Amino acid sequence: MQEVADLIHHKLDELLPTPDGFQEDRLFEAMRYSTLSPGKRIRPFMCVTTASLFGVNSDYSTQAAAAIELVHAYSLIHDDLPVMDDDDFRRGQPSCHKKYDEATAILTGDALLTYAFEILSMDSTHLDPHVRVELVRVVARASGFSGLVGGQMIDLLAERKDVDYTEIVRLQRLKTGALFVTSCDAGAILGKASKNMRNALRAYANNVGLAFQITDDLLDAEGTREDTGKEVGKDAKAGKATLVSSIGVDKAREQAQILASQALDHIKIFDRRAEPLRDLAKFVVQRHS
Amino acid sequence: MQEVADLIHHKLDELLPTPDGFQEDRLFEAMRYSTLSPGKRIRPFMCVTTASLFGVNSDYSTQAAAAIELVHAYSLIHDDLPVMDDDDFRRGQPSCHKKYDEATAILTGDALLTYAFEILSMDSTHLDPHVRVELVRVVARASGFSGLVGGQMIDLLAERKDVDYTEIVRLQRLKTGALFVTSCDAGAILGKASKNMRNALRAYANNVGLAFQITDDLLDAEGTREDTGKEVGKDAKAGKATLVSSIGVDKAREQAQILASQALDHIKIFDRRAEPLRDLAKFVVQRHS
Repeated sequence: MQEVADLIHHKLDELLPTPDGFQEDRLFEAMRYSTLSPGKRIRPFMCVTTASLFGVNSDYSTQAAAAIELVHAYSLIHDDLPVMDDDDFRRGQPSCHKKYDEATAILTGDALLTYAFEILSMDSTHLDPHVRVELVRVVARASGFSGLVGGQMIDLLAERKDVDYTEIVRLQRLKTGALFVTSCDAGAILGKASKNMRNALRAYANNVGLAFQITDDLLDAEGTREDTGKEVGKDAKAGKATLVSSIGVDKAREQAQILASQALDHIKIFDRRAEPLRDLAKFVVQRHS
Repeated sequence: MQEVADLIHHKLDELLPTPDGFQEDRLFEAMRYSTLSPGKRIRPFMCVTTASLFGVNSDYSTQAAAAIELVHAYSLIHDDLPVMDDDDFRRGQPSCHKKYDEATAILTGDALLTYAFEILSMDSTHLDPHVRVELVRVVARASGFSGLVGGQMIDLLAERKDVDYTEIVRLQRLKTGALFVTSCDAGAILGKASKNMRNALRAYANNVGLAFQITDDLLDAEGTREDTGKEVGKDAKAGKATLVSSIGVDKAREQAQILASQALDHIKIFDRRAEPLRDLAKFVVQRHS
């Protein structure tokens, strides 16, 4: 994972605009600040690893993965805003609106989201325009009203009312699952995978995404800020309904294990080149940060 | 223009998600509220009219134009936020964050921007993936850090310091010009226009965009809220540097006329099918709202 994280860091560094005496340098600085801080880069890892199952040129998969990471970074910046989840820390450093200001944070998110689509449209992402346009389509779908944004809207509304387990699962499928699924799907699209293989990988990623989210909620309930690099105990303080608050810590831990093991089943059809994806399914439920 | 505005209204109505008992209905409502209010739809008009120069199927050009209008609507919603330009009215009605709340407004903008790229990637926008991916590229470029977002960042920073005429022109080229240019360019891309023709149309649109912006600043300095559907006198109140404050009302009016007449020169190469584009160049400097 560290290897892919380093590749992505370099690719992002290369792709992002550099402050150089422009009137809008503050924007470029904030784009870099929010993107180049060390992260797990799980979504890029899923994209690059899936693409490698199909022998995709790693220049292509790294670039598509970087675009997906920009979408993830944008969503964190907007979610952290005071009128949203009001988080002052992210990845162990002040969140974008604390380091800069709210207006800059909103614009930085907007710029990263938009740039992701520009990158996906470039012929350096893949020579075949069918592939590029399909990447744009799936990433847009996972990011918009039927993905990230829809999930965040439900999440905000959920703070105001009681939500049941089914509703929370739907929320998380939109808010976290969709981009996880699309990360694997992007790798499969780059590899011109068959429909069957795409479906298997999407099912795998859906389970990994939900397991990841449950672990996130467990860490918020039980972890420390030192471990997670962000404030903890926020869900409970906000009275936010999570999978953990809905079914309890023990049941949630058990559920995460089941999801991870189902994820492994989905990718049985692949040979040992899928080993990193199998490791990831185990990692997401064992992680402490 | 009214004809195109009606076409766009229907297309947007058809494309936008409909509230229907979903958890996230509030988002869908806000997307519709901000997009389906009556607007001039100048950018869609430029796209559709340019496409018709090349005999493009109007289903295609209307859909691409609708995507561009979504980008425009997103930028208005985010620009109107209290931490940005703090505008309570837009198109004669409360702006999105006044009608709903700030979090909803941020998410609504995010959703509209993202959906624009999803729409451009659909094969109902054009059968040829080369065309679709080029549309994504130019719209992303005009919307992101080297377009709308960059321009808005400069605009915010400009409130804090003195800026000269050249800097204001650059700001406006990013903030308004880029999407105007891309509106014509999208029509030309759909029509697989030659490089020469694309350049002529881009030059035309660049001039029209700047003339439009100067007129906007003049209306803010001299118009009424009844005419413009939004608050006026805000630039002066905010101490914001505009082309009008920089060179004065008379010079600005003159400059807008020169730009409009240069715009006409750029599209001399086209036959009478370009008449609506010529009318537009005259309209943008004569309008009262």
